[in-house]
Amino acid sequence: MAYRPKDTQERILQRLKITKGQLGKVIKMVEDDDYCIDVIHQMQAVESAIRETEGVLLENHLKTCTADAIRNGRKEEAVAEVMNVFQKSR
Amino acid sequence: MAYRPKDTQERILQRLKITKGQLGKVIKMVEDDDYCIDVIHQMQAVESAIRETEGVLLENHLKTCTADAIRNGRKEEAVAEVMNVFQKSR
Amino acid sequence: MAYRPKDTQERILQRLKITKGQLGKVIKMVEDDDYCIDVIHQMQAVESAIRETEGVLLENHLKTCTADAIRNGRKEEAVAEVMNVFQKSR
Amino acid sequence: MAYRPKDTQERILQRLKITKGQLGKVIKMVEDDDYCIDVIHQMQAVESAIRETEGVLLENHLKTCTADAIRNGRKEEAVAEVMNVFQKSR
Repeated sequence: MAYRPKDTQERILQRLKITKGQLGKVIKMVEDDDYCIDVIHQMQAVESAIRETEGVLLENHLKTCTADAIRNGRKEEAVAEVMNVFQKSR
Repeated sequence: MAYRPKDTQERILQRLKITKGQLGKVIKMVEDDDYCIDVIHQMQAVESAIRETEGVLLENHLKTCTADAIRNGRKEEAVAEVMNVFQKSR
Repeated sequence: MAYRPKDTQERILQRLKITKGQLGKVIKMVEDDDYCIDVIHQMQAVESAIRETEGVLLENHLKTCTADAIRNGRKEEAVAEVMNVFQKSR
Repeated sequence: MAYRPKDTQERILQRLKITKGQLGKVIKMVEDDDYCIDVIHQMQAVESAIRETEGVLLENHLKTCTADAIRNGRKEEAVAEVMNVFQKSR
């Protein structure tokens, strides 16, 4: 279960749906034989959009789940989870 | 216009469509109130998939467009394009 | 002021000194006219080493300062700091 | 052997020496028990500096070695080298 306030949840969903639309446009660009470099730049824009949404999720997670876990004696596991995200984000 | 051999083109399209499907699953996870950290890990998997496909596009670009440009006296502009992708990839 | 246990502090310092030594070797490679690609690979190894040490610092920070801040009603500012590191790490 | 024009070579060496100095300051910060987040931000600045210098090296490499290799029938190996750098840069 997640603890996401309703407005955060909607913001995340809206962003993800926009990003999925962008990815659909990238597919169209490839089908239309668009120039590789233009396609790559659009894909880099999709990556940026995904990372920003990850930031929204992580920030919410730190403020809710991580904070609760720290207050309830589950600090080690809460920190391990965040570090795991951090290591994979590089 | 792009110079993508048919099999490369198909491989890129197939990967992008799978990635779009993965992103659809991420949206479903958020709608289902899945745990933030699980959602973030799936988003990081989407990022990795996009980067790998960018690699396929870039490799093809270097072998075709960049190589042609270098042989035809347009080295400066060919290198600038690649450097632009490289800078934004970080 | 930092709250770093003595062994963590020593581990961080040892890693940083080794990394500084590696960077000294990169300088020597450039002076010796070593092949660009070999130099770049060594620089990428230096980057990885720095990131790993950042991970050690961040993990310690989350377990000490962030946890204390959350327990003492300074959650917003503690989360903002971590998010700032996360955003810049990409 | 590398093909680096004298001014590019000097620019790379100067940057690397400045970066090594920055890394020395990071070590001093840790020894002085500076705040973790401040140390991490300085380390992220060192990472950025290294990446920028990698960019200078790569750009020079593409304009000299890669271009020569492409003109001399060694395209496959020249592209493989660049792709290797690109994959590791993420």
